[in-house]
Amino acid sequence: MDNGLPAGFRLGVAEAAFKKTGRNDLALLLSDRPAAAAGLFTTNKFQAAPVLAGRERLRASPTARAVLINSGQANACTGEEGMLRCRQSLEMTALLLGLSPDDILPASTGVIGAQMDMRAWERALPVLAENLGRAELEDFASAIMTTDAFPKYVRRTQRIGNEKPVGIAGVAKGAGMICPNMATMLAVVFCDAVVDPDEWRKLLAGAVDASFNRVSVDGDTSTNDTVYGLAGGASGVSISGPRTAILGKVLTEVLEELAYMLVKDGEGATKVLHIDVVGAANDADAERAARAVGSSQLVKTAMYGEDANWGRVICALGRSGAAFNPGEVAFSLCGVELFSDGKPSSLYAEGMLAPALAQRDIRMDLRLGYGPGRFRLLASDLTHAYVSINSDYRS
Amino acid sequence: MDNGLPAGFRLGVAEAAFKKTGRNDLALLLSDRPAAAAGLFTTNKFQAAPVLAGRERLRASPTARAVLINSGQANACTGEEGMLRCRQSLEMTALLLGLSPDDILPASTGVIGAQMDMRAWERALPVLAENLGRAELEDFASAIMTTDAFPKYVRRTQRIGNEKPVGIAGVAKGAGMICPNMATMLAVVFCDAVVDPDEWRKLLAGAVDASFNRVSVDGDTSTNDTVYGLAGGASGVSISGPRTAILGKVLTEVLEELAYMLVKDGEGATKVLHIDVVGAANDADAERAARAVGSSQLVKTAMYGEDANWGRVICALGRSGAAFNPGEVAFSLCGVELFSDGKPSSLYAEGMLAPALAQRDIRMDLRLGYGPGRFRLLASDLTHAYVSINSDYRS
Repeated sequence: MDNGLPAGFRLGVAEAAFKKTGRNDLALLLSDRPAAAAGLFTTNKFQAAPVLAGRERLRASPTARAVLINSGQANACTGEEGMLRCRQSLEMTALLLGLSPDDILPASTGVIGAQMDMRAWERALPVLAENLGRAELEDFASAIMTTDAFPKYVRRTQRIGNEKPVGIAGVAKGAGMICPNMATMLAVVFCDAVVDPDEWRKLLAGAVDASFNRVSVDGDTSTNDTVYGLAGGASGVSISGPRTAILGKVLTEVLEELAYMLVKDGEGATKVLHIDVVGAANDADAERAARAVGSSQLVKTAMYGEDANWGRVICALGRSGAAFNPGEVAFSLCGVELFSDGKPSSLYAEGMLAPALAQRDIRMDLRLGYGPGRFRLLASDLTHAYVSINSDYRS
Repeated sequence: MDNGLPAGFRLGVAEAAFKKTGRNDLALLLSDRPAAAAGLFTTNKFQAAPVLAGRERLRASPTARAVLINSGQANACTGEEGMLRCRQSLEMTALLLGLSPDDILPASTGVIGAQMDMRAWERALPVLAENLGRAELEDFASAIMTTDAFPKYVRRTQRIGNEKPVGIAGVAKGAGMICPNMATMLAVVFCDAVVDPDEWRKLLAGAVDASFNRVSVDGDTSTNDTVYGLAGGASGVSISGPRTAILGKVLTEVLEELAYMLVKDGEGATKVLHIDVVGAANDADAERAARAVGSSQLVKTAMYGEDANWGRVICALGRSGAAFNPGEVAFSLCGVELFSDGKPSSLYAEGMLAPALAQRDIRMDLRLGYGPGRFRLLASDLTHAYVSINSDYRS
């Protein structure tokens, strides 16, 4: 059956009504064979039960058969009981699908602190098992949404060398790196190439570093953030040697597309800020500078106001901790230089930028000096709607 | 003349109309004798001309006669020309008052990037000189305001030992550690005790560390932040030995009161969050935790929404970088424990906290474990009005 997915994978969704009814909130990805499996998890010290369980499984085995995601309940800050319920959900699923519980990688997103409703799992899992193979990528992406405004998924087929094309697909959810406002960042990427598990792990880590680790909505890292990658091999196309880098590039592009969607769908966001820092002493300093600018409330509100306020950018840079010589700094907004050699550029007329600032995508280019360090960050703006969404959350 | 100020000090204000007319925007504090002088300045790498000039003067001499502050123009990112104009303003002032330019400590706040209007200085300085001694503390505090909603000043008289009382006064401006939105943080504190300049410098540094360094509106540190302290000695009361600590305590209290006012007047703020972290491995970890919580957009919007959203606090703590055992963490909001031993507290009913959360002052107590580390931070909430003020700034 050609379901448009990478070969050897099936998707299923169901409604467990963890938080509300009338929408699917349970999603399963199943590989018809053991797939090379990798995962990356939140650095938050409070780690949700599915994060702990997912790590444990990936430490024990280089392969997996399935990814199981629920939205509505995060199963975070739930202690030993939370771990127990996570394992129960995996055992029930495994029983229905004829798998071992250790073959399934879990992820959850939703309200933290509450124990998962196991009756809801019991009711929904048989439906999920029965529907398996009927869901499309968009259904899967929709079932894992929380505050997301739109489902996020990418599908690619790519010829690598002279072989037949490899299929790769990715889904993500998240309206920010936001916690615990129902907006954990989760992603799953899967492909049908044959890849050595160790290589696959490295490819995924590199691709995540180049994509999800370079976006910021509000700087908050959740208790549940998880990215899983499965390479099932059903295409029969074996990737090794120089082809590995090509697969890595495609993987990175897929995750970059998903990462862009996360920022575009940032809570209340109207802009995607493309903050490009070059000329830093090293990449770490460039990253410090980009993150200071991209997380500055003053920069984010100025961009929302479509205000070419270079002073706020310069000020955020100045407190970033990055090493540089102020006299060598230059800043361009939407391609127009506003600041150079430590001073405002004289040739700029305020009205020039208005049409460019009215666009969704805003280029912000910072040159710190003449070093080799560079970093690019995608960030959202800070809007009235952001405050509304987050101050009216539970009241 | 008893002007209610510490003995030996006079104040003057004038309208230079740097940014708008109809209000005073130039302020001078004059000591009738050389006063022990100290200053603390922004850590931003872009340092305004008056910051560079103030540092220079304090390095060269342990005493000063005057502090000169203008609002409306920050004289930041103005290069060599900015330094020249800063020196000119000090030379003109010195000439009128019969001082040396090196006796005057400058500070500026306002829009950055523009060169100061020297004609405005020329017009206003004679008026300032003529009015000297007629201004009160509130006039001074009003003249240095920018986006501030109210003038910020504190006056105390304090008996230290058996001597006659010492007078101490402080003024501050700032609606946030905000840059360059016309809201740099500036403060001047002055007293009439006789204090050794080295001791005075240490006292001021300690008092600033315990006050202004523990407030945050939006995490942005401006190019112009400055705190000056003068101890003129006109009371004749000499402070040394064990009395030094008492003066330090009074000084700290004065700056704490001013710091509280800064947060209360934070742009758009409706709340003052008193974030108290204890039980950390060390003070630095406690500070990391407090700053992560106090700068989290999600915590700040939740407090604005009067929402007892402990999950956001716990999540911010988890990404703070502070070392702790999640199972030992406890969090109380307005005195009610919501989280302990790594889990939500079961005894809490949502409605209980509504009256407390409706107040302006919100207590947030975090215990990370059983270490000696502690830190207290005052922070503002994040509101619709904040976004309005900062997105409508120049458009």
